[in-house]
Amino acid sequence: MSPMLPVVVDAMGGDHAPSEIVAGALTAAADGIPILLVGRSDELGDTGGLEVIEASEVIAMDAEPGSSVRRMKDSSLVRAAEAVRDGRASAMVSAGNTGATMASALLRMGRISGVARPAIATLIPTPGSTPTVLLDSGANAECQPEWLVQFAQMGAVFAHHRLGIADPRVGLLSIGEEPGKGNSFAKEAYAALVASAAGGVRFIGNVEGRDLMTDDVDVVVTDGFTGNVALKTAEGALKALLTALLSAMAGRPEARAAADVLAPELDGLYKEFHPDAYGGAMLLGVRGVCIISHGATNATAMRNAIGVASEMVRTDVVRHLTTAVDR
Amino acid sequence: MSPMLPVVVDAMGGDHAPSEIVAGALTAAADGIPILLVGRSDELGDTGGLEVIEASEVIAMDAEPGSSVRRMKDSSLVRAAEAVRDGRASAMVSAGNTGATMASALLRMGRISGVARPAIATLIPTPGSTPTVLLDSGANAECQPEWLVQFAQMGAVFAHHRLGIADPRVGLLSIGEEPGKGNSFAKEAYAALVASAAGGVRFIGNVEGRDLMTDDVDVVVTDGFTGNVALKTAEGALKALLTALLSAMAGRPEARAAADVLAPELDGLYKEFHPDAYGGAMLLGVRGVCIISHGATNATAMRNAIGVASEMVRTDVVRHLTTAVDR
Repeated sequence: MSPMLPVVVDAMGGDHAPSEIVAGALTAAADGIPILLVGRSDELGDTGGLEVIEASEVIAMDAEPGSSVRRMKDSSLVRAAEAVRDGRASAMVSAGNTGATMASALLRMGRISGVARPAIATLIPTPGSTPTVLLDSGANAECQPEWLVQFAQMGAVFAHHRLGIADPRVGLLSIGEEPGKGNSFAKEAYAALVASAAGGVRFIGNVEGRDLMTDDVDVVVTDGFTGNVALKTAEGALKALLTALLSAMAGRPEARAAADVLAPELDGLYKEFHPDAYGGAMLLGVRGVCIISHGATNATAMRNAIGVASEMVRTDVVRHLTTAVDR
Repeated sequence: MSPMLPVVVDAMGGDHAPSEIVAGALTAAADGIPILLVGRSDELGDTGGLEVIEASEVIAMDAEPGSSVRRMKDSSLVRAAEAVRDGRASAMVSAGNTGATMASALLRMGRISGVARPAIATLIPTPGSTPTVLLDSGANAECQPEWLVQFAQMGAVFAHHRLGIADPRVGLLSIGEEPGKGNSFAKEAYAALVASAAGGVRFIGNVEGRDLMTDDVDVVVTDGFTGNVALKTAEGALKALLTALLSAMAGRPEARAAADVLAPELDGLYKEFHPDAYGGAMLLGVRGVCIISHGATNATAMRNAIGVASEMVRTDVVRHLTTAVDR
């Protein structure tokens, strides 16, 4: 097997860039993954000999994505996507502006032939089981119902290669299990999934928000608005409960002592339910691997994200996506 | 002050009806709240002398709401709504079929003059603060953007009378805080809220799913599809984490012992985050108080729901809603 092309890492993207990003990249490199950094080399500190692609501009976390990508041709995000397009890198990873990451990947790598719209696939933790793949979790605020057939196909391929699920069960996010439930968008998407025999994937019908974190479904498809609301609601609920739990345990001295005893269990739960547990989301439908990490990514999360990118290259997921989608 | 008209309770509605419903009603009666039961009197067991309105039919939990309500004129739900309409009761409470409860209330009590569509307002727990009012959490799968102005007005009145919040902050659920974020529905709703000066309420702009369980907002308005997805996603996330927590604490003997010490704290959290913590949702916009409880309602939850109904009558919330909505 030929050596893998490097993973290109946007060293300037994220709330803790560049220091935590570079630290994560160095750990990933020590894991044996070839890395290319991109950014302002004089701001990166000690890069441990990693090669750096120079990029003079940085797209801010809150910048308008489309115009920034079009205007800032020498930004780290655009240069990262170009490195994949030009065959210098096998995958890109960024914890920067999510919209700009998508736009860079879309405009520079291009869409997989026949894909109507790329979608962001996010992993939702499911206690005691494999996570649930949720897509679109935010790439397309406005969707056509028929796009969800391709989301189902891409999500199933991703669940298979990312999570090792043999024949993933795909559900449509709605507000009742019966086929007639939902708004007109959900009803039309249901009809499109049925009419296409779900494009060859195992469609199990409607699922509800409460099913996302259960083992009753492997892939959940929805439009990017509803998906993003669901994702952030789940994150917020977990954060609220964990915060309340820690606060309750900081009360009575006996409770504090008991919490100390439970530290290993609580630490395990914290890691399992943390948004960074799975190393970032993947943009499915572009001609290359593009991993989108949380803005709050630290060195550990960046190491995980680079590991996922490398694994997605190794399993050749983009080729599998290319053959899976209906045209 | 004249004695309050009774609260009418659908004794046949809910997974644990009639036994838990009647038990809850008896406790509420012992609390001093006048109660009317409605259902099949020969199935209710000992009703402790509470008056029973006879109703021969029961609308099943999974029945199609509209046609059931039109067809089953002698059902407990329809009779309950009629009791409010006819001035025999001040409020209705049901843990039965949610859609049929709404339809009964809407068809028998009627809408408040000028209200385009009633909406379900649900309380979302917020650690260390008052809960957040989410509406519409499922009455209208399909909404017009301009309806959200009335949802904002009704939600603010409800937050004031139900939670004692003086000048509730109202946010629009979207996928980014900036005004331009969201799908076309959210953008149009934003424009309608701004154009109407939010109908006289304190509109703070867009909020995200992660804000629902924080103290950053008091009332969150959205369409009934997105609201229902968010509500069920939050419930599912809390359930998943609590289940994982209890499972983690049932492992090592030391962990089990520590969990025993923490029983008061865990019990408090469980109660705070349980969907029944707040005694049910309220259908806002009909000409009467209508409290919709979870299907899984037990005696305690029913007692709470009846208490909420009584409180909403006492504060005359329907009259306040009537004067608050733009026509």
